[in-house]
Amino acid sequence: MATESSGSLQSPSARRRLPEVSVLRVGHRPGRDPRLTTHVALAARAFGARRMYLHPRDDDLAERIAAVSHRWGGDFAVVPVDDWKSLVRSFPGTVVHLTMYGIPLERSLPRLARLRHILLVVGGAKVPPDLYRKAKYNVAVGHQPHSEVAAVAVTLERLLGLPRPVRAGEAPQRIVPSSRGKRLIGGRSRP
Amino acid sequence: MATESSGSLQSPSARRRLPEVSVLRVGHRPGRDPRLTTHVALAARAFGARRMYLHPRDDDLAERIAAVSHRWGGDFAVVPVDDWKSLVRSFPGTVVHLTMYGIPLERSLPRLARLRHILLVVGGAKVPPDLYRKAKYNVAVGHQPHSEVAAVAVTLERLLGLPRPVRAGEAPQRIVPSSRGKRLIGGRSRP
Repeated sequence: MATESSGSLQSPSARRRLPEVSVLRVGHRPGRDPRLTTHVALAARAFGARRMYLHPRDDDLAERIAAVSHRWGGDFAVVPVDDWKSLVRSFPGTVVHLTMYGIPLERSLPRLARLRHILLVVGGAKVPPDLYRKAKYNVAVGHQPHSEVAAVAVTLERLLGLPRPVRAGEAPQRIVPSSRGKRLIGGRSRP
Repeated sequence: MATESSGSLQSPSARRRLPEVSVLRVGHRPGRDPRLTTHVALAARAFGARRMYLHPRDDDLAERIAAVSHRWGGDFAVVPVDDWKSLVRSFPGTVVHLTMYGIPLERSLPRLARLRHILLVVGGAKVPPDLYRKAKYNVAVGHQPHSEVAAVAVTLERLLGLPRPVRAGEAPQRIVPSSRGKRLIGGRSRP
């Protein structure tokens, strides 16, 4: 697993010392529609996380995300986790649990921004209660019910900034920003 | 349909002149797993949109979101739209289409922040090409594939700020931010 920051989609991380963030998604339900977890993974990747640990494992989903990284650049990957509690215990960094019951993100940001390695944990509908104790920080992206996709994206955006356009040569295919229509270089016309 | 800003979940809008944002979600597929569109709606609500227009209509989904607003406060609603092109043409404000092919959000924000009424359009996988022409702005929240949930949440967060905790008396149930565990006042213990 790569740990250096080359190929990051978040170019600011190359200039400033920003935390390296991994996401842990628990409560995935293989067999049900995988789009929600796929969106968590894609948001994690697009907003600069290094990888997403997934429990329970879903090899089809991991392969689809690997194909996205292959086409669009970077080395983000979905890493299967059989024992997520062990990962939370042994993670060499700080465990941050995103929950609507936690401390407002705004208030937590200054501390989070000083961390080196963050494991950002998002659950599905039912998160085991002991996660609240095992996490160093329980952080709320608002205190209203919304979405683990939104929580991951907004937290990463506030920590790492908005993703920059990929530069020429960094990925097999990339978008040229356009005020009208689609301009895609090096790939098929649809993502 | 209420247009005043009382009961907004975004208290900054009461202090500064912020745009009023409605979301239009096209390409919903009733009958498939509704969670993705539900998450778009919940994110739109939590991050301060006034309403979400939905095409094609999905009354079950609209009812579930109405129940969330009833419990958690505010008057956000899902409004069915049979002819979304007509809505885009006749919307009394500015149509902003979120697409990975557009102009970076960062660059668009100063102009968007000056608008009074915004219709934020998000599609599913297949968006009709003429939407790119009908929108006043095509805006990209990054140029990587991710998620309409993330795009809506991050755009609203950058425009309106992070959602504030709901104050006492504003909703039948509300969360008291906590560093450990769950503190919910006036409701059941689960959202």
